[in-house]
Amino acid sequence: MPISADIEREEGLELRPRFDASGLITCVTTDAASGEVLMVAHMNQEALQKTIASHEAWYFSRSRNALWRKGETSGQTQRVVEIRVDCDQDAVWIRVEQVGAACHTGRKSCFYRKVEPGEGAVRLSAVDAERLFDPAAVYRK
Amino acid sequence: MPISADIEREEGLELRPRFDASGLITCVTTDAASGEVLMVAHMNQEALQKTIASHEAWYFSRSRNALWRKGETSGQTQRVVEIRVDCDQDAVWIRVEQVGAACHTGRKSCFYRKVEPGEGAVRLSAVDAERLFDPAAVYRK
Repeated sequence: MPISADIEREEGLELRPRFDASGLITCVTTDAASGEVLMVAHMNQEALQKTIASHEAWYFSRSRNALWRKGETSGQTQRVVEIRVDCDQDAVWIRVEQVGAACHTGRKSCFYRKVEPGEGAVRLSAVDAERLFDPAAVYRK
Repeated sequence: MPISADIEREEGLELRPRFDASGLITCVTTDAASGEVLMVAHMNQEALQKTIASHEAWYFSRSRNALWRKGETSGQTQRVVEIRVDCDQDAVWIRVEQVGAACHTGRKSCFYRKVEPGEGAVRLSAVDAERLFDPAAVYRK
């Protein structure tokens, strides 16, 4: 990365999130206890404000084009312990206490497969892939 | 998140990364020892392939529009211990052994400030913000 001219954004103590052309910022969510990455999602300005104010994780769903409180359907909420922002303020990292599982597939984390380089074609293998809930039951209308 | 129709991408063991309209995927990089989030960056197909093949982290810089081996200028390389992919394969998580510091500002992590909700305006405070190198010296031409 080149040294940015925007020293104030990098060195200052003012929150000046840099939303992209769609008005979104990337959010990495980790488990406060284990450090495991639970999910990567997006926030718009309102989601970030609500997360800061409520200590509950709010995101913006690109597929549904809607603000979304994590767990509002599934009950798998996230209590926010800490919020950090990166150098150029285009990403946030939230450390959370996860109720149940973060992934809509029922796994604790969305990252339940690892890449196996191997000899031939690259493959995936399951890791920490146990389901903690049945998505068909949880998301049933 | 709604249950995706793309069950194969979510449940299969084939690596099928979902690059965005710009040909990029989000990458979260954590320290393999401490679990700390070091940085959030992007990879294009070539960066992902090189990362898998070489066990060194490669990214794609949006600002420079160029493939980039982490540490090629600064010497602060990342040896990749594990690569995971998320449920819908639009994000990867790499666990690395970081040589020196990940952030171009000289800090170990790019996330050296936390959000302080407080009573009035939201402010940031420094956390783990010690510089491990002097960017002016490292990036000098």
